[in-house]
Amino acid sequence: MINAALMDQIQQRLPASQNVSRFETHSAAMGIPTGVSNRHVHLSQADIEALFGQGYQLTPLKELRQPGQFAAKECVMVVGPKGSINKVRVLGPARPETQLEVSKADCYALGIKAPVRESGDLYQSADALLVGTAGHANLQSKVICAQRHIHMTPQDAQMLGVENGQKVRVSAGQQCGLVFEQVVVRVDSRYALEFHIDTDEANAAGIRNGEAVYIVE
Amino acid sequence: MINAALMDQIQQRLPASQNVSRFETHSAAMGIPTGVSNRHVHLSQADIEALFGQGYQLTPLKELRQPGQFAAKECVMVVGPKGSINKVRVLGPARPETQLEVSKADCYALGIKAPVRESGDLYQSADALLVGTAGHANLQSKVICAQRHIHMTPQDAQMLGVENGQKVRVSAGQQCGLVFEQVVVRVDSRYALEFHIDTDEANAAGIRNGEAVYIVE
Repeated sequence: MINAALMDQIQQRLPASQNVSRFETHSAAMGIPTGVSNRHVHLSQADIEALFGQGYQLTPLKELRQPGQFAAKECVMVVGPKGSINKVRVLGPARPETQLEVSKADCYALGIKAPVRESGDLYQSADALLVGTAGHANLQSKVICAQRHIHMTPQDAQMLGVENGQKVRVSAGQQCGLVFEQVVVRVDSRYALEFHIDTDEANAAGIRNGEAVYIVE
Repeated sequence: MINAALMDQIQQRLPASQNVSRFETHSAAMGIPTGVSNRHVHLSQADIEALFGQGYQLTPLKELRQPGQFAAKECVMVVGPKGSINKVRVLGPARPETQLEVSKADCYALGIKAPVRESGDLYQSADALLVGTAGHANLQSKVICAQRHIHMTPQDAQMLGVENGQKVRVSAGQQCGLVFEQVVVRVDSRYALEFHIDTDEANAAGIRNGEAVYIVE
């Protein structure tokens, strides 16, 4: 059920300038804030220790929009056969498995071919070397280009008329606007409503972090 | 009029693997080959001489799809307030006015804000410094992000049911497919049929040079 309290909740999550009018209750009119992901890495505790030293713990620098997730103070260098990228941000907390997420532009710079995948789907993905302050970690089949997706709660999903795993079309941007096809919906009560894309995709659409996008037919 | 000879002409312009079936004569089914533009610069003769020496002439390296245009042997370094990019290709022949075309990702790397514009529309565009083998050229209001567009002949336009200056929607890519909005149609008898986008846009759609895209409603 769409009700005023739920609509208020949704509105509070959007930047003030992009609030959805409380009079627009049709799902297609509900703005979803964009989260632009620059290249980043999730690390296992073993890899944290390999990179930064025995018993090392990540230092939270900034909370992310997704509850419990944070950008850490720590960065690593990513090295591929063709080039390297410095200061790649580590996101926390530690995960069971290390996963490096890059854009296609990064793949060209590094000289690797990372497949477009949902988070966690690492089978036959790409390789790279991470270098930290205390050592290195050789990632084998742990590098992907994250497939664009929308995080949302079950309430959001109900409001938007979509369900977990569904693929939807998302309209974004103005002057160089475009419609993203094949956007995966991921529903979990721990999520915050957010449309996740990488820097290539944000640049192509001419949109920035926090900008509202819309699910379209 | 759509006739067999015209359809054959169109087909000959497409890579073999992406040929449009000769039985598909509806305009929406006519594939348009993609041309992905990496960052590049068109130079005036004065700037060619400033960068490479008095009386210097560009050396053609490779013909481009657009008739008469070529990638030159020469490259320049582009310098902005935040960073520089080496080996930026010069395209020839010389033009009346210098124009540097970059992606948004390049803008971040250089520390400049180039507007999204049609080629030639340089009013209040961005600045950058070019460095060549014999000197430099200080570009003032000569840097843009090229707005995506389709080159075509009047015959192509007739076949596709569009006209010069019209903005159309273009469907591109598969796994990470998307629909580009606001694609400008540019009609001239000297053009070859080609959908021009930059590297950010190609990466976002997951498409490569030569891949077929389609105008959609």
